Order: sequence, then structure tokens, then C-alpha cells
Amino acid sequence: VSTAAICIIGNEVLSGKTRDENGPWLVAELRALGVEVRRIETVPDEMHLIVDSVLRCKAAAKWVFTSGGVGPTLDDVTLPAVSQAFSRRCLRHPRLEAIVRAHYGERTNEAHLRMAEAPEGATLIDAPGLFYPCVMIEEVYILPGVPQFLRDKFTAIRERFRVTPIHLRSVYVSLGEGTISAALDDTAARFPAVQIGSYPRFDTDEYRVRLTLESRDSAAVDAAVKHLCGLVGAGAVLRIE
Amino acid sequence: VSTAAICIIGNEVLSGKTRDENGPWLVAELRALGVEVRRIETVPDEMHLIVDSVLRCKAAAKWVFTSGGVGPTLDDVTLPAVSQAFSRRCLRHPRLEAIVRAHYGERTNEAHLRMAEAPEGATLIDAPGLFYPCVMIEEVYILPGVPQFLRDKFTAIRERFRVTPIHLRSVYVSLGEGTISAALDDTAARFPAVQIGSYPRFDTDEYRVRLTLESRDSAAVDAAVKHLCGLVGAGAVLRIE
Repeated sequence: VSTAAICIIGNEVLSGKTRDENGPWLVAELRALGVEVRRIETVPDEMHLIVDSVLRCKAAAKWVFTSGGVGPTLDDVTLPAVSQAFSRRCLRHPRLEAIVRAHYGERTNEAHLRMAEAPEGATLIDAPGLFYPCVMIEEVYILPGVPQFLRDKFTAIRERFRVTPIHLRSVYVSLGEGTISAALDDTAARFPAVQIGSYPRFDTDEYRVRLTLESRDSAAVDAAVKHLCGLVGAGAVLRIE
Repeated sequence: VSTAAICIIGNEVLSGKTRDENGPWLVAELRALGVEVRRIETVPDEMHLIVDSVLRCKAAAKWVFTSGGVGPTLDDVTLPAVSQAFSRRCLRHPRLEAIVRAHYGERTNEAHLRMAEAPEGATLIDAPGLFYPCVMIEEVYILPGVPQFLRDKFTAIRERFRVTPIHLRSVYVSLGEGTISAALDDTAARFPAVQIGSYPRFDTDEYRVRLTLESRDSAAVDAAVKHLCGLVGAGAVLRIE
């Protein structure tokens, strides 16, 4: 199955200095491609915590995306951590080194060259529009933390993750969750291929609960919507989107 | 030490139907109280994944906050999951049952009463302004997923988490990360009590890198700022906040 997990690396997010934009952005992109996101973890810039998180993400999903920790400073430890997770050495890569040296010229120093490291055996993915290739190992894609760079990089490689899209319909009802709970359970039991969500809202008079029905099988979604609306009663269904 | 971990429970966040507001809000609140957030995990509404996440959060921090999965529908499994994490039974609590019955009156059904469950031995925390007490077990605070309710609940209990505040100063410089890397390493080595962050920006001409220096010891922060600015050179320091 086409699943993904996201590992956000950065003390700045955990300390509230920066609000993470990369997680929500990747979720929306992956969803649009038909990929199911199984977990998101936000961890500090600490080797063992990144290793632990990457391994758990890898066990939970087909594709893993890391964000952050790939700059030139000492607290950037994502590349060594991902290397360690897969028992690889973290080595300076000749192609990456050439790019870094071409970019910084005579100013190139040891700190800049930390950005030329990669896990031994990593794949460098080139794509039109990418100045710097994307580093991937064991289906773990190492993305930068700067939102603009992360977006450029993911956008350049996004088509490799496209799968059958997920169909979503929303049913807005005027009854509370407790009242329609039996109808939801019955629909969930009858349509196992359809994932059902229930989201109450209390700060509007427009509706009480938004119900979501999702599946890769669009006919199943339509049949489940019809079944559910029958159980809830037409009078309580405000609109279907 | 005063640390926290946050566990966001909800398929709606992982599927991008809802953008999580609770994680960033809790991070900001906890930070203002002087609490260090060690990790945030976003997991699906699945028992074993919630159990696993709560136990890891508990091992990583003093206080754990869960968000979501406490409504009346079948996919609301946070209370049973937290119970299982601590090998407790999940039982209907007489006080919670009374509140639910008082609220729903004759309409009260089994689904509503799922919201009256709590791990055996849990503490119910009452506070002014709270209609429904906060359920806590082993320093795991079970909060609702609806942002408005989560905020009300956390705000009512927030003073119990107040510790020595963390002092933060930001230094904005006109040099790139690679160039100042040695100055950062030196400052980090000399001031172990100060946490240093480095955040480059590429979409503005205002500055190249924002450096953050943080500690519970405000004198150490001031000394570290002075030391760092000396190494970077006054000409490259644009401003200090």
C-alpha cells in the first residue's frame, strides 16, 4: 500500500520559535497524490531521537520524509542520524561536494562541506528545476527544513509518489454525534472499504457534525453515503459535498 | 526537569481534512510556562498506535498531553488506549456519568456514556470555569480534540505546569550559516547552559541568519550573546532582540 510517514526535525518547532509549515504542506500534497500519511513525529535535533524516529516511521510506512537538520551547523545531524539508522557510514559525496564547491567557490569551508555528506549508498535524485539533488536511502527522502526549499524539492520529485486517488465526500448533519453514532457504526460495518470520520463543531449554527466518507473505491463511497443518509434521515442531512 | 510531550490523535489531521491547531497552541502555552516540549507525535485513531505513542511520550517527558479521540463515536479510542498503556481497566466513572446524564437528560444513550469513561484510578481535576473535569492518569492529561474545548481545559489547569521561565534572545546577522559556524560552535562549547539555534532565511534581504540563544539562566544568555557578537564581528550583527 502507498503510505508515508513524516519526521519533522527541529528544536525551533518544539520550542515554538517557528510554527511548522512543512508537515501540513506535505500532508496535503501526499493526500492529493493518493498517499495515506500514517504518522508525523516532531523530534529535537538529537541523534538518537532522530534515529529512533526514522526507524519507527520506516516500519510504519512505505515512504518516509524527513524535514530539517541538513544545514551546515553542528546541530544539523539528520544525515548522520539517517545513516546510522540504516547502519551506513555518513560520507562526503563527490557529486554533492562538487556542487557545494561550485556554489561557495573560494569561501567553501568545512561547515559548508557538511552539506555534501550523504549516507553511503544513497541515491541522488535529479529532477528539472533542482539545483541540488534529493538524497534518498531506503525510501527515506531527506528534505530541508526551510519551507521554500522543501517545497521546491518535493515538487520536483512528487510524481514518483502518485497512486490511485482517495475519494472523499462530506455529509453535514443537524444531529449530535451521540444521536447518530449507531448509524455510523452500521455504515462502517457494511462498507469496510470506506473510512468514516465524524467531526463535531460547536462554534457555528450551520451544522452539528461533519461526517466524512473516504475510499479509493468511489462507488463504495457513493453507496455508503446513500446508506448513511437513509439511516440518519433526510431531514437531518443539511448538505452533501 | 519540566518537560512535556504531546500526542495528537486523529485521522483527520493525517489525512489533511483538518489542520492541527492544538499542537502549536500547546507548544506556545507550555513554552510561556517555562516547560520544554520534547516531542510531538500525530497518530491515527488506532488503539495500539495510541498506546505505543503515549508510552513513548511518557518515557520522554514528565507531562504528556493527548489531544483528540474522546468523543462518543466508535473511532474515539483514546480513553481505552491510555488505560491500556498503564494496564488499567477503562471504566464508566460515576461522577462523569452524572455530568453526562445531567447534560443530555432523557436523550442520554450508550454513545454519550462512552464519554463518561476513564482509566481506573484516574484523577479528575476540577477548576473554575470547567464544566467537565480534566481526566489525568500518571501525569498524562487527556484533552479533547476540538480546539475551543482543548483551550478551555488547558487554560483551567495551566498554572500547575508553571516553572522557571526560559530566556530567549535573538541575534540577526548578515553572514551565512557556513561562515559563522565556528563562532557558534565556540559559543556553544563555552556556554553549555545556553541552547543555540541557527535559522537561515532566503526570502528576505533583511538578514541572512537568525541566531537564538536560550536558557533558564538569563545572565548566561547575556554573556553568550556578548561572546557570540564579539566573534561574529559588530559589523555583521544587524540587531539583537
